[in-house]
Amino acid sequence: MLGAGSWGTTFAKVLADAGTDVTLWARRTEVAEEINSTRVNAGYLPGIVLPQRLRATDDAAEAMHGTDAVVLAVPSQTLRENLAGWQPLLPERATLVSLAKGVELSTLKRMSEVVSEVADVAMEQVAVVSGPNLAREIAAEQPTATVVACNDHDRAVALQQACSTPYFRPYTNTDLVGIELAGACKNVIALACGMAVGLGYGHNTMSSLITRGLAETTRLGVALGAEPMTFAGLAGLGDLVATCMSPLSRNRTFGERLGRGETLAQAQDAAHGQVAEGVKSCSSIRQLAARTGVEMPITDVVHRVCHEGLEPGPAAAELLGRERKAE
Amino acid sequence: MLGAGSWGTTFAKVLADAGTDVTLWARRTEVAEEINSTRVNAGYLPGIVLPQRLRATDDAAEAMHGTDAVVLAVPSQTLRENLAGWQPLLPERATLVSLAKGVELSTLKRMSEVVSEVADVAMEQVAVVSGPNLAREIAAEQPTATVVACNDHDRAVALQQACSTPYFRPYTNTDLVGIELAGACKNVIALACGMAVGLGYGHNTMSSLITRGLAETTRLGVALGAEPMTFAGLAGLGDLVATCMSPLSRNRTFGERLGRGETLAQAQDAAHGQVAEGVKSCSSIRQLAARTGVEMPITDVVHRVCHEGLEPGPAAAELLGRERKAE
Repeated sequence: MLGAGSWGTTFAKVLADAGTDVTLWARRTEVAEEINSTRVNAGYLPGIVLPQRLRATDDAAEAMHGTDAVVLAVPSQTLRENLAGWQPLLPERATLVSLAKGVELSTLKRMSEVVSEVADVAMEQVAVVSGPNLAREIAAEQPTATVVACNDHDRAVALQQACSTPYFRPYTNTDLVGIELAGACKNVIALACGMAVGLGYGHNTMSSLITRGLAETTRLGVALGAEPMTFAGLAGLGDLVATCMSPLSRNRTFGERLGRGETLAQAQDAAHGQVAEGVKSCSSIRQLAARTGVEMPITDVVHRVCHEGLEPGPAAAELLGRERKAE
Repeated sequence: MLGAGSWGTTFAKVLADAGTDVTLWARRTEVAEEINSTRVNAGYLPGIVLPQRLRATDDAAEAMHGTDAVVLAVPSQTLRENLAGWQPLLPERATLVSLAKGVELSTLKRMSEVVSEVADVAMEQVAVVSGPNLAREIAAEQPTATVVACNDHDRAVALQQACSTPYFRPYTNTDLVGIELAGACKNVIALACGMAVGLGYGHNTMSSLITRGLAETTRLGVALGAEPMTFAGLAGLGDLVATCMSPLSRNRTFGERLGRGETLAQAQDAAHGQVAEGVKSCSSIRQLAARTGVEMPITDVVHRVCHEGLEPGPAAAELLGRERKAE
């Protein structure tokens, strides 16, 4: 497991609880030492005791040595750079698993495409895990379902077995395109839901945004070759609903601040200097939409709020004022 | 508008705000008088001032006289009996609009089928309004979208125009079967979500239940002739998410009480003697599933909790323990 943030650490715990030996790489030596000596990653998962089967290291070569699978738990916009450094250390036949959600800004590539390209492996060797997976709830062993996607069904099944626990229930899927687009677009819709909450709107508004947001995500996905039913599944609808519901989700929280009238810079300061992933992905997704001729009114409005100075209030009015029509 | 509960009163306000003349029938004389004299229905919509264009009466004949549309806002399990009494008063060509969500226990009929049968009119004369429509939020004029469904597209468009306001945005649809099954099944899924909340589970669990619940609803709908895309729309996904998210929704609240260990009788007492609609509909929907050979594991478990003494804890374990498979 490369990356010891909250989701990387949590998924490492899931694998260990499923009986899989895991070495967790942390960039900072003190985090690796803390995990090995105290069984806790206090900075990212306070209060969660990690299983004995999980070892931590600050040496990426040690983490990857002889493993069947390398799980990449780094942010989407830095995945290319990180992976380029790790590339010489990757075991030849290992499944490369991406946990990142996003579309690369400069290239408009999905994470699995970046992985395949940088690691120089066939697409069949790359897998993705995505679903309604709020890390803290899984770390607390609350029942959760997820999707393990790989073009190679056998690899998907092997990964499914490696991470099945009584509280974590993975389903396999082979529609990588759909799974990844759903994961990237949900961050943008969560930003929109956050803005609605920040403006004082309630559950009807939020669920309308979720519904129409999933509809525009599905349109884009189908235009790019995804299966439409993927978007009705756990990595589509499921992930979207969990992210938009949870007051803890980063993109929703970021959107709430914008909705309450804060600037992008103020919201970024409040998030310890980090910009929510949806703020970046809305631009790349909007470009994908333009390239494929797909109408994505919510993504468009989020982009204009984040990058062109549109105010959230008029943005909401614009979405509601569109022409009346059939569903 | 026949029925002055919270949704009937709210939809009457929407129609009036859209410029439509509305007469609202209340069973109790004092409610009709209160609305006419104070513009408030304090029992069901406290704090909401109703528009001047809305008049109330306790005389159903007066409410229906000469109208283009009769809106039925009574509970699903009493619709047949109520409508039988009103049948002689119905204007001949009026569109009959059902707001009730459910499947009749004894006959397994959808509400539009009950209306068509009891009023003795063609199915083309019956319409349904359904969507993410928490009454209190609409009454507070929060932005909301909905679906107006009728086999006769022209009637759907007329009704759409009659209820379009800046805060209420209706889309038309002609898939009555899908819209009504989605509305009935969501009450059952909301019960299941409530049970999960009552058991202490979080947003991952709830969104997994929503996703798999919508999947089983879609399977049933398709088996009964509905369009699959209807379930991804506002009256499917949208209504389901709003109901499951809102701590105010009756079915979710009822389920929460069961999840916390209360009996059906205790939950009923807490709900002023009313049983949540999903408690009844889970039985009729389960029968429809058996008749069509569709697997509905969540509905099945809800039925067994409500009517066969299964405890919510073991019910959750049973849902999670199902065989691992592809999505």
